[in-house]
Amino acid sequence: MQMSGLLWTREELAQIRGHAHRSTQLGQSLSELREELDQALTAGVVVPGQGEPGSYEHNTHKHNAKLIEHAALMGRVMENNAYLDLSRDLLLGYAQVYRDMPFQVARNTNPPGKLFHQILNEHIWLLGASLGYSLLNGHLSADECEHIESGLFKPMLDMFTVTYAHDFDRIHNHGLWAVAAVGICGLVTGQDELVDKAVLGLDGSAGTGGFLAQIDKLFSQDGYYVEGPYYHRFAIHPLCLFAEALARHRPGLNIYERGGQRIGRSIRALLCTVYPDGRFPALNDASRSMDIDDEGVQIALAVHAGRYAPVPELVAMAAQQNGTWVHRFGAQLADAVENAPRSCHIPSVLLADGDGGQAHLKLGEGARRHHLVFAAGQHGMGHGHFDLLGLTFFSGGRERLKEYGFCRWLNVEPKFGGRYLPENEGYAKQSVAHNLVVVDQASQHGGNHRLADQCHGCIEKFVDRGDVDGLIAVCGSTEDAYPGVSLRRHCILLEIGRSEAPLLIDIVEAKGTGKHCYDYVFSPAGQIVRWWGEFSARDTLEVLGVGHGYQHLWVVGEQASSREHAMTWLDGDRFTTWHQYSEHPAEAMQLLVGANDPEHNLRHEKKIMSRVHAGSNLFVNVFEQHGYFDEASECCRNARPDLNSIAVKRLSEERIEVTLNFPQEVKSLSVDTGAAGEADYITYRGGDRRHD
Amino acid sequence: MQMSGLLWTREELAQIRGHAHRSTQLGQSLSELREELDQALTAGVVVPGQGEPGSYEHNTHKHNAKLIEHAALMGRVMENNAYLDLSRDLLLGYAQVYRDMPFQVARNTNPPGKLFHQILNEHIWLLGASLGYSLLNGHLSADECEHIESGLFKPMLDMFTVTYAHDFDRIHNHGLWAVAAVGICGLVTGQDELVDKAVLGLDGSAGTGGFLAQIDKLFSQDGYYVEGPYYHRFAIHPLCLFAEALARHRPGLNIYERGGQRIGRSIRALLCTVYPDGRFPALNDASRSMDIDDEGVQIALAVHAGRYAPVPELVAMAAQQNGTWVHRFGAQLADAVENAPRSCHIPSVLLADGDGGQAHLKLGEGARRHHLVFAAGQHGMGHGHFDLLGLTFFSGGRERLKEYGFCRWLNVEPKFGGRYLPENEGYAKQSVAHNLVVVDQASQHGGNHRLADQCHGCIEKFVDRGDVDGLIAVCGSTEDAYPGVSLRRHCILLEIGRSEAPLLIDIVEAKGTGKHCYDYVFSPAGQIVRWWGEFSARDTLEVLGVGHGYQHLWVVGEQASSREHAMTWLDGDRFTTWHQYSEHPAEAMQLLVGANDPEHNLRHEKKIMSRVHAGSNLFVNVFEQHGYFDEASECCRNARPDLNSIAVKRLSEERIEVTLNFPQEVKSLSVDTGAAGEADYITYRGGDRRHD
Repeated sequence: MQMSGLLWTREELAQIRGHAHRSTQLGQSLSELREELDQALTAGVVVPGQGEPGSYEHNTHKHNAKLIEHAALMGRVMENNAYLDLSRDLLLGYAQVYRDMPFQVARNTNPPGKLFHQILNEHIWLLGASLGYSLLNGHLSADECEHIESGLFKPMLDMFTVTYAHDFDRIHNHGLWAVAAVGICGLVTGQDELVDKAVLGLDGSAGTGGFLAQIDKLFSQDGYYVEGPYYHRFAIHPLCLFAEALARHRPGLNIYERGGQRIGRSIRALLCTVYPDGRFPALNDASRSMDIDDEGVQIALAVHAGRYAPVPELVAMAAQQNGTWVHRFGAQLADAVENAPRSCHIPSVLLADGDGGQAHLKLGEGARRHHLVFAAGQHGMGHGHFDLLGLTFFSGGRERLKEYGFCRWLNVEPKFGGRYLPENEGYAKQSVAHNLVVVDQASQHGGNHRLADQCHGCIEKFVDRGDVDGLIAVCGSTEDAYPGVSLRRHCILLEIGRSEAPLLIDIVEAKGTGKHCYDYVFSPAGQIVRWWGEFSARDTLEVLGVGHGYQHLWVVGEQASSREHAMTWLDGDRFTTWHQYSEHPAEAMQLLVGANDPEHNLRHEKKIMSRVHAGSNLFVNVFEQHGYFDEASECCRNARPDLNSIAVKRLSEERIEVTLNFPQEVKSLSVDTGAAGEADYITYRGGDRRHD
Repeated sequence: MQMSGLLWTREELAQIRGHAHRSTQLGQSLSELREELDQALTAGVVVPGQGEPGSYEHNTHKHNAKLIEHAALMGRVMENNAYLDLSRDLLLGYAQVYRDMPFQVARNTNPPGKLFHQILNEHIWLLGASLGYSLLNGHLSADECEHIESGLFKPMLDMFTVTYAHDFDRIHNHGLWAVAAVGICGLVTGQDELVDKAVLGLDGSAGTGGFLAQIDKLFSQDGYYVEGPYYHRFAIHPLCLFAEALARHRPGLNIYERGGQRIGRSIRALLCTVYPDGRFPALNDASRSMDIDDEGVQIALAVHAGRYAPVPELVAMAAQQNGTWVHRFGAQLADAVENAPRSCHIPSVLLADGDGGQAHLKLGEGARRHHLVFAAGQHGMGHGHFDLLGLTFFSGGRERLKEYGFCRWLNVEPKFGGRYLPENEGYAKQSVAHNLVVVDQASQHGGNHRLADQCHGCIEKFVDRGDVDGLIAVCGSTEDAYPGVSLRRHCILLEIGRSEAPLLIDIVEAKGTGKHCYDYVFSPAGQIVRWWGEFSARDTLEVLGVGHGYQHLWVVGEQASSREHAMTWLDGDRFTTWHQYSEHPAEAMQLLVGANDPEHNLRHEKKIMSRVHAGSNLFVNVFEQHGYFDEASECCRNARPDLNSIAVKRLSEERIEVTLNFPQEVKSLSVDTGAAGEADYITYRGGDRRHD
């Protein structure tokens, strides 16, 4: 086996070449890279000076690291010397200027680099440049190698491991990039001591820093990453690259077996969070558009297929990607995709983490399938949102109950340099920005990250009978999110024959000592069609509250206090009706996000809130999807919901019976948190004929 | 030539059959119809009773007329007797019940039918059923024919021509459906006297009613239809079908030559309004999603290709359609599409109508090309909006300056039965809902349709130098929209080298006697990025005004009075910056649509307003598109605009010079409405180096 670069042999490069000019995933990636490189050849080598985040200089440096890697790789794959020369000339250009370049000014808690304001970007840069350099083996003179290694790589490595030694051993996604960059550069330049530091940490113990400690500590037993999918896909990128480099060049480490195949678990944990449209749910700080075409996800899928197994649901997901890793595993995956069925069963998953965890309830197949995310695990450190027992729901191609996501215009320079905006703390992280019950108009754990990090939710039940009677349920609770109040939530997806989409039955039990204000809130997308019952619209919009995100909400209108509410909205081609039964009379409000936002950092989105003042309360909600609307063809069906009313009985302290009255039939369901087994937790009787 | 149905010969049906199982436009239509019919065969024949608009019954009757036509046509095309039987059984089912069915209750000014609440739907029903019946020739027994003609067609025809004789001769899109339905049924059932009535009107004069009078009076010389594209595409459907029937069966009428080829002009006039993405601009009452896949548009395109010429821009448009007419002309068009280039030059067009008209300024090719619509023609009768000198602008795949469209949830039964909502008069039609200058916070012509119908705007200049120096301009004016105030607007699209998209330079001259309030308003889509300069956000949102649509606008915030304003927004992958110079200091406001809307009939959209109190004022606006943003890949470029400032000089009463100061250069442009020729109207000097 003759290596032609750190991660590619000659034979593998030839295998990859076989996909050129084909319409496979790998063929797509190759033609995109060719287009990028041909444009770059026309533009020539440009090594700019220093600039602000989001500036031309910043963007060009980022792009140049990609070019160094892509040009070297495609030079080898396509046997094109012009590409190899481009990679070489870029490296030489940086080697010329890097040593004498001054440090940038720090803009956040990250130490500054030279090319970039935060060292993280410089780690990413080195990793890409090192991979590219490894592929130029044999294309560079000894002088050129010396020039690049001493002028560029050495000062970078010194900066990372000496100047910022304090940052190198941090167990964090940034730390993972640091060790992967240093380790890969060490392997490429033959510096074993650097590789050891990267693997074992600066102290060589593998206990407090380095790649092995990162693998052990950064992910739960199930591979769950506490910051959420958005940062998980970012962390998995260096995780997979460095693992693959070590698997090839330090096979004795058995890296893919480490921690009970922790890397494989982590890849599966990430991928099981993906919505049917390929986007990641925006749990914790996250954009609403990050998807499986992210480079790290492409690599992770390929690595899983190559090093663990090409399991059917991952191959089905790969088929949704617009490209794959340019690597033998990408080639294998592309071949697997060609031979795989279009659709397959996607199992529901509970990602445990101690007593808590994150549940992913899934029903159906294909792009219009259903996926409910229920969060009852850890907080998520500095990127955590106060969203314990929060849910999001994706169905029929759209997120029906939405996450707001982060408040950040990433890389948009005029928006605070593209960094997190004040409204991220002020609104996006606060409990009221999510789909849950807020107590006393305050965020969970008082909105205190340190406190929240010490707590987590508890998953009490998890039942997957999707294949049996079309029912999936989860029950979670928290005792410590609010002093003196316990919250328990049951989320049930239930397929009923009449409709393409399952009902979402959402039961929240709030129990407090003394009197509290309980706000059941959710975020629908699209247009309100109608509130069933009288609705008073406000002429003048006033702010709802004074803090914890309430200061960013206007009240658009309300319904009088009642134990029953219903409201229908339209999003895309489908109607959804929210039906609520509340134990105590609740005032329902329609809200609008965007108050107290002088810099236009928030999106004007709708929220619905149902408010009760009581010691305890039980909210039983049914989200019924129905009908069809296509404006262009002027076609509409079933714009009214089918469900007439909800009746609720408390059979005991822990047993709740919910009866759904449809025009032609009655469906009845009970939950019993006290039941010993999961089989007895939920009882469902459907299809009884009504006798009136 | 053996007719197998009114519009199809055996040979033509064979030609159509040749497209089955192919991926041509016609092949697509055939497979969609097959799918529809196979579902219908499974469901069986269902003839329901009477129902509300948007109800199951209403929808089923509508669908059944389609089924009768489609099943007969596909039965002949695919030589499938099951389809022919389905068509027959549906006709027999209706013949069984129709005569004794009571009349519905009228819901608007339209007389009621039996199947539907408005007679219009019953006309459409008869037209489709008659075409289907014509194709069953030879498949029905004499008894069956007698049963269908006496039980179904005769009572319908009596209703249309006797009971509602007063409505039959109306020159209106409804009247066009009436004569087409009666004429086509008359041709199919061999009742010449009915055909004569449909062609010449009830009095036989061709002067006040009937198809010939409709052709002469409903469309301007240029084929422009006063109600706007949304109703034009609805009127063109019966226009083309009946014309084609007469061309075949009354060739002596030379129908396609009538009125200087008025039908061909009308088709071209409609199609030249289409945006690059295939949707129609929402001028006057219109949905924002109606597009060229509407059945009427598919037929019109095919008829133009077959009866006039398959001109390149229409073939390019046909290539964007997802189907075509199942007819020999559809087959010809599908063949033409296969052999046509993907993209072609789309010419700018001025649709004249007396002194006024509608200008369509077009630049570029392909899906990201640019299209500005400027309205300075007639009002549009009951569907007219008070939008004289209004503009909309489509560029880079999106409408950048938006039309609100109608306020109607078509066929959504819980929204006022799917009919026009009160907010259509209250907001959507009002001047402030458009992109223009509103005077004294009132709509044009006092919001009086009758007055507005007697007036129209005036096009003063129209210059297309797109091929020469990338400049297209139009100038229009009105003297009578407001008493004592004249308004003139210049819209200029100007390609400048630096950017993919042209600048839109928008100059409004308002001249009044006495003091007035001038509100320059426009509707951006997407997210506000930044107001350049200090912006005060309101905590509490108050209503802007008391009538003419102002009661539906909240004030979100404002900038202090100034002669210069700039604001950047992001929509899709592109930024747009609005730069304004105002002769007198203007107060700029950010507004939100949706106040005083207790029924949730309005969409919460943004508006920008710049307000001046003065006798006269000159607003010079530049809309600069710039940069790129893709959140998923976290890539952003050029989020700041390039244009530094605008300087304006009045060189004479009619000559205005605008200087655009960019960092590296100055561009200067002047308009002179007093210039004799269009060549001298606009002077442009670009690319001068700056001397400071």
